[in-house]
Amino acid sequence: MDEFELIKKFFDLNKIDSGVVIGIGDDGAVLEPNINKQQVQVIDTLVENIHFPSTIDPADIAYRAVMANLSDIAAMGAIPRWMTLSLTINNKNDKWIESFSKGLFEAAEHYRVSLVGGDLNFAENISVTISISGEVSPSQALLRNGAQIGDSLYVTGTIGDAAGGLELLKKNKPNNELTQRFLRPTPRIKIGRELIGKATAAIDISDGLLGDLKKILVDRNLGVDIQLDLLPISEALSNQFNSHRCYSFALNGGDDYELCFTAKDEDVSNISGITKVGSLNDSGIILCYLQDNIYKFEDESYRHFK
Amino acid sequence: MDEFELIKKFFDLNKIDSGVVIGIGDDGAVLEPNINKQQVQVIDTLVENIHFPSTIDPADIAYRAVMANLSDIAAMGAIPRWMTLSLTINNKNDKWIESFSKGLFEAAEHYRVSLVGGDLNFAENISVTISISGEVSPSQALLRNGAQIGDSLYVTGTIGDAAGGLELLKKNKPNNELTQRFLRPTPRIKIGRELIGKATAAIDISDGLLGDLKKILVDRNLGVDIQLDLLPISEALSNQFNSHRCYSFALNGGDDYELCFTAKDEDVSNISGITKVGSLNDSGIILCYLQDNIYKFEDESYRHFK
Repeated sequence: MDEFELIKKFFDLNKIDSGVVIGIGDDGAVLEPNINKQQVQVIDTLVENIHFPSTIDPADIAYRAVMANLSDIAAMGAIPRWMTLSLTINNKNDKWIESFSKGLFEAAEHYRVSLVGGDLNFAENISVTISISGEVSPSQALLRNGAQIGDSLYVTGTIGDAAGGLELLKKNKPNNELTQRFLRPTPRIKIGRELIGKATAAIDISDGLLGDLKKILVDRNLGVDIQLDLLPISEALSNQFNSHRCYSFALNGGDDYELCFTAKDEDVSNISGITKVGSLNDSGIILCYLQDNIYKFEDESYRHFK
Repeated sequence: MDEFELIKKFFDLNKIDSGVVIGIGDDGAVLEPNINKQQVQVIDTLVENIHFPSTIDPADIAYRAVMANLSDIAAMGAIPRWMTLSLTINNKNDKWIESFSKGLFEAAEHYRVSLVGGDLNFAENISVTISISGEVSPSQALLRNGAQIGDSLYVTGTIGDAAGGLELLKKNKPNNELTQRFLRPTPRIKIGRELIGKATAAIDISDGLLGDLKKILVDRNLGVDIQLDLLPISEALSNQFNSHRCYSFALNGGDDYELCFTAKDEDVSNISGITKVGSLNDSGIILCYLQDNIYKFEDESYRHFK
């Protein structure tokens, strides 16, 4: 099959969104944005051996690629609508593409996002780029820049699981619960929607809590004290790794696609699935505490972000 | 510089579109679609050594990547507005990124499209994915599926130049005019707009005229007689190659990003920059004629598309 036939067979399967005037099969998709909404657009690429091991199931590659983008949509408080896919693969193996397509549409149907267009290329290394458009009411998007001194720092779900799962995958010791968190992360679309008007700043944790937290604090004189014993660490993770490694996965592991956000406690007291892990101050630095002591990671006494 | 700093320095430079509420620097871009417009979305990836030689200037890689997408926007009759970029590079060489950024913004400013977001990755092979959103009035998008028996077949500009230019580039014999057509193609946005309500089908020529023409005719019983001596072949091309090679570049060369469309002659008589090259019939096949003789390409008597 040529590119055209492969796309028709494995990707022209969308049936979700009535706002798709023209989907796959023309030079571009034609879409009907909802009136009185702002549009949120995200794009993200996963490259073989950089973002995922080449050994994982094509369905999982596709699923994860959709989730990486949906997580950005969640972090903006938006509702996903449409996605385009640019897929680069290194062979024309129908079975590979069929499995990839299955994972992609599983993800798409689960989160009600329509595949409306794309591009298929053949090259040495597998690379998956997905772009998703979502919608949000005017001025309601969750941004990164509103954190205030006195806000609390929250995360969603449990963190560190995917990094632990990836380590087990690499060592060929799959622990089902942890590896599934890497292969099939959950974008926090619902919590993102609930945070509108409540979170002062939000970001998805794709580079690890400490790395992404910096982006909320950067260019401002804000600091955070993180309480390690408050970190939401799953039983699955703590059963597999000692507490120091669990903290390290939770602070530096990037693949959970949970959200990190700042808010006043009283504004988010009714939201479930979130955990307060620290408080913002004017120190300009991020410090991690275990009980009352600054916790040392390797040779660093603390992580400084400037 | 890390990813964050590189993006801030070389890519967070947009100043074009008042519809950009939040641009680069958050989890996603926030955009204001125009009321009463449909949105056109396209995505296209260029991979090093597949779509361009690794020796070309990074500014040209970026420029060409934008044009490849704008050409799809043109083929839909839309006006481009926003683009996102996912760039994978194999080193952190500032000079490379600076040159790439220069070519990108040159293209963006020329066609008034705003860079609103993106993703930067480091991997072995260079790969550039761009997604562009444009707008078109409801029901006005140019589609591929309306060609009729009796329509004429047209192309824009001159065709075959980029393929000739690429061949000269590969042989290290750059001919400025032809190689520039490969490196800096012109998307036919203006002609695409003029074709609204006039062309019965349109597509951009990214895979060569014969290859893309098939997509207009496919699943229908349409055929085309192409008159080779009508093909718009530039003097620059015919000065470098014999007529057989010129025809071959014009029919099979894919990198010009001209448009191919079908229309009634009287509907497009006022549009400049277009050339009639054949007529549609009910034969179900594509035949090329030189004067009154079927023209043979290599060992094929004609190109059959079913």
